[in-house]
Amino acid sequence: MKIFIVLAHPEPRSFNGSLFQVSVNELKAQGHQVKTSDLYSMKWKAKVDRSDFPNLVSDARLKVPYASRDSYTAGDLTEDVKTEQEKLLWADVVLFHFPLWWYTMPAILKGWVERVFSMGFAYGYGEHSDKHYGDRYGEGVFAGKRAMLIVTAGGQKEHFSTRGVAGHIDDLLFPINHGVLYYPGFQVLPSHVVYQTDRLDQAGFEKEAEMLRDRLRHLDTIEPIAYRPQNGGEYEIPNLTLKPGLEGKNVKGFSIHIRDS
Amino acid sequence: MKIFIVLAHPEPRSFNGSLFQVSVNELKAQGHQVKTSDLYSMKWKAKVDRSDFPNLVSDARLKVPYASRDSYTAGDLTEDVKTEQEKLLWADVVLFHFPLWWYTMPAILKGWVERVFSMGFAYGYGEHSDKHYGDRYGEGVFAGKRAMLIVTAGGQKEHFSTRGVAGHIDDLLFPINHGVLYYPGFQVLPSHVVYQTDRLDQAGFEKEAEMLRDRLRHLDTIEPIAYRPQNGGEYEIPNLTLKPGLEGKNVKGFSIHIRDS
Repeated sequence: MKIFIVLAHPEPRSFNGSLFQVSVNELKAQGHQVKTSDLYSMKWKAKVDRSDFPNLVSDARLKVPYASRDSYTAGDLTEDVKTEQEKLLWADVVLFHFPLWWYTMPAILKGWVERVFSMGFAYGYGEHSDKHYGDRYGEGVFAGKRAMLIVTAGGQKEHFSTRGVAGHIDDLLFPINHGVLYYPGFQVLPSHVVYQTDRLDQAGFEKEAEMLRDRLRHLDTIEPIAYRPQNGGEYEIPNLTLKPGLEGKNVKGFSIHIRDS
Repeated sequence: MKIFIVLAHPEPRSFNGSLFQVSVNELKAQGHQVKTSDLYSMKWKAKVDRSDFPNLVSDARLKVPYASRDSYTAGDLTEDVKTEQEKLLWADVVLFHFPLWWYTMPAILKGWVERVFSMGFAYGYGEHSDKHYGDRYGEGVFAGKRAMLIVTAGGQKEHFSTRGVAGHIDDLLFPINHGVLYYPGFQVLPSHVVYQTDRLDQAGFEKEAEMLRDRLRHLDTIEPIAYRPQNGGEYEIPNLTLKPGLEGKNVKGFSIHIRDS
């Protein structure tokens, strides 16, 4: 397969950076084609701003979504953004390696999403009717591709459990898995999370590396998270609220948007 | 009161930027002292990296939390970061104005958190015993201060409702309200969210501006979100899982960490 790996960590020698190398080496050893974007080493520009849209009239009010659509349509996006979009289109599977900082992805990766997921490319198209509300949440440019987060966290696993004070890790990652990846059509695999990485020694790292390699051997067969497609009949249109009765028993929060197995 | 307002939008003439001006003007008119950080106009550096810690030995492995603690303790943080920390310490209330981009805050604001909330300043201290697990989630440097998010969203309100496809807005903002603000001790006020801002005309803006002014007149009396303090006896220590029975009936997801009213 063709696999694109995005890394968002400033230190190659970190636990996270080392796991990234494990992924690259393992996937190449399995015979896959691998492309990478190491955002820190690329000096990735994190903020979206006027300079991303060189053809925007200098005194025009900047509306980021529409400026990105106009630049995308005209082929005038900056080269760094175009290159990332090409890697995404090339890939069968996209992996994101990052540390959980303040309960979500690092700013540099958030800015990658803001700049690379242009309107017209990643969202903002598709029929709007009484049965269809744009190609999104299960449909879109990345339909047929798979994506997975590989996350390191300093905290204990229990702190991110169903009753853990931080909130469940799947809920914390929902805005990324559902809102950033499922939204433009990716099939999203359950996230691979490693906890208390600051406490792990070399033997602990080796064990985690082997668990990751095992996960990577099954990228094509792991069952994706069963998010409900927006246009599959489970949501009212245009309110996009889940139809009555589908949420199952005693369920509240983000998990209503996942089908019971 | 002393009020610190952080803005994360690249266009002063945007709906969001205009609401920021409403806040500044209204709070000054009420007689409050106001300080601001307009992150885009300040050209805020969004990524945390080695250059934030000038005294880090050049070939030392960068561990962001510990490097930030060492620099904070030595008084060697960069001037931009020190200035933001001083504003936070000065303020009685901190407001964050930002657009909801990809279901969370913009990268530039995320990077502000990563750089300004240094270890030793915003977290990473306090007794660890069988009754106390650090000064966090309701305790910490910002105890006694209030914070509130003022958010603009392109989507419809229903899409962010309890059954809405995007997930409930309070759940989407939980990692910020609970994980970034309550964590270092802020009392967090319910977020002020304006929907479909792209569709609002001048009359719509004026109506929203007045609703915001009304909210700002009650900053000192609005009831904070009733998050459960970590060390108040409701969580097991050190697992930090909510004790049995406290979650109420039929409740799942982030909302278990809020007390029933």
